[in-house]
Order: sequence, then C-alpha cells, then structure tokens
Amino acid sequence: MDRLEQQINFILEVDKLKQITRQSYITGASRKETDTDHSWHLALMCALLAEYANEKIDVLKTMVMVLIHDIVEIDAGDTYAYDAVGNQSKREREVKAADRIFHLLPGDQARYLRDLWEEFEAQETPEAKFANTLDKIQPVMLNDATGGLAWREHGVRKAQVMGRNQRTGEGSQQLWEFAKNIIERNVGRNILEE
Amino acid sequence: MDRLEQQINFILEVDKLKQITRQSYITGASRKETDTDHSWHLALMCALLAEYANEKIDVLKTMVMVLIHDIVEIDAGDTYAYDAVGNQSKREREVKAADRIFHLLPGDQARYLRDLWEEFEAQETPEAKFANTLDKIQPVMLNDATGGLAWREHGVRKAQVMGRNQRTGEGSQQLWEFAKNIIERNVGRNILEE
Repeated sequence: MDRLEQQINFILEVDKLKQITRQSYITGASRKETDTDHSWHLALMCALLAEYANEKIDVLKTMVMVLIHDIVEIDAGDTYAYDAVGNQSKREREVKAADRIFHLLPGDQARYLRDLWEEFEAQETPEAKFANTLDKIQPVMLNDATGGLAWREHGVRKAQVMGRNQRTGEGSQQLWEFAKNIIERNVGRNILEE
Repeated sequence: MDRLEQQINFILEVDKLKQITRQSYITGASRKETDTDHSWHLALMCALLAEYANEKIDVLKTMVMVLIHDIVEIDAGDTYAYDAVGNQSKREREVKAADRIFHLLPGDQARYLRDLWEEFEAQETPEAKFANTLDKIQPVMLNDATGGLAWREHGVRKAQVMGRNQRTGEGSQQLWEFAKNIIERNVGRNILEE
C-alpha cells in the first residue's frame, strides 16, 4: 500500500468518531454531542484562547492534539467522567485502540499521533496541560448553557466536578477561574448538588 | 464586556454549527454529517495531507481556516453544491452571517477570522486553495464510502461533479488525481450518471 493510500485509510477509519456520543448536550439541548463536535470545538477554542495558557504553547501542536485526543474511543467507547467502574479499565482499552488505529498511518505519522495522544494523557507538557484544560472547561460551559442537563441526568455533585478538575488550573489559571465561577453559580441554583 | 467574555460568547454561539446538516452521509450511512463533523475531518486531513499541497502552506493557518469556513451557515444554512437556486443568493446570505457572527469576538480576533473566511472564499492564496481542495475531496471520499448515497439521492451526474471540481487541482494536483479516480470508478459502477 502506498503512503497516500495508508493516509486515506486512516482518514476514513476515523470517520467513525462521528458516531461516538458523549454525555454533554449541545446548546439548544436537542441532542448529546459527538466526539467530533467536541474535538472541533476544542480546536477552535485552542486557536482563540491560547493567550490564556499559563506557559507559552505551540498552538498547531495543541490543535492537532485535541483533534485526535478522543480517537481511541472508536474502539474503547466514551467513558463518562463520573463512571467509576468504566474508568478502571479505561486506560487498557484505550491503549489497545491507539495501537490499532494510529498504526493505520505511515510509520512517521503513526508515531507522531500515537506520541501526541500519550503526551495528552500524561498531562505534563504545556501543550498537554492546556489541551486538558480545554477538554475540562468545554463540558462545564455546555452544562451551564443547557441548565446542567447532563449533570442533573447523572445526579452529579459539586465535589465530583471539583475532583475531576483538580489539575485544570495547570493549563490555564484564568480559564479555570472562569470555570469555577460557572460551577459555583450552578451550585447556587441547585443545579449541581452541594 | 471584557475580552474573555466576548470570546466565550462567540464559542457558545458557534456551538450552533453542530446543528447544521450537510448532504454527505457519514461512513456506515446511519446519518448525514454535520458541519462540525465535516470541519473536524478537514482540519485533521490538513494536518496529515499538507505534504501534497502544490505550494508550501502554513498548516496552522489552513487548519483554523477549515475549522471556521462553514460558520456562516449558522445563519445562512447549508446550500447543497448542486442547488442552482440556493447558490444564487448564497454569497449575500453568507456575508451577512459573517458580519454578525465573527464580530461577537474582540476586534483583533473578529478581523482575523472574518479575513480568513474571505480568504477561503476568494481561493487565491496557497492556504485557501488547499483548504478548498480538502473541502471538495472529503465529500467525494464519503460518497465513495457509502455507495454514492448522497449523489444517488440527488441524481447527481458526472458533469456536475467535474464542474464543481474545476479548481480542485489548484490546491493539490495529487489529491485531485486521487479524487478523479474515485469519480471515474463511480461512473463505471453506474453510481454517478454519465
């Protein structure tokens, strides 16, 4: 198989990400968002909000990172943030998926995306920290815009949201302050349980 | 309103792009794709296929361009490529939408995205030519992967597809050769009418 054929195979395979549903509702609350909706949103947020990163980031690298950060869910499925059992096996399922899917690409690009996904997961570089910040604040924004629909469906408590966001400030203190205000406002409105 | 507030307003407003449906079916053909599905796909294709651009491109700029190229459809709606009547009023509807939506952002970012959208439309720079190439070959790929479902639904003929793709080779001759092979194959199978 030639290089372009391998690339096209990958591009068609990852089309399946359009079928993976998350728990957050889109604004208007007509349906839950998909992984592709979410990834598009994060990439655009990255382009517009990079100025708030705690450390200078490579914007292109971070955008590619958020575009591919959920691709493993094609095989592993979306594990809801507050699903304790699902989160126990998450890492193992996702590593297997990463090995299969990214390796459809030519060697150099397979390594590039596979490494970028691991970097996102490890959350140690400025880019990975900022990408994780975006990944956490976007569902908070959508919950706020839809009257906490996903939070209420799952009876989520403030302590759970705060627990999940322990590291969100590492990518951007300013964006985390912004998200904390949203969380507090929703506790005040009895949308998030105290 | 402060800068971050304006940016967040825009980010929530463009969430509506998730509700705009295109004519192409996603692989598996379970539903038509949305503008956000499509824009995510183009951004990832840009990151992986930039090496085939006829002229050297700024990959980051091109990725942002494809992420925002359909945002005007929030107000203007999706105009199907082969809808002759709809295409007459398309430009006017889209300019009005661009003026409203991009100007939710702070001045510098409003101008940046508004100009980037015009650049995409004008199709004159290497980045805009390549972005348009991706925008044209992606639905060809999806049609091919779904047995030409959208083409057959609309009784599309080869001459229409070729007419729409007159400038596709300007961004990447190699990707246009690849897409032409797909088109010919689907004529051979009587999926595209001669």
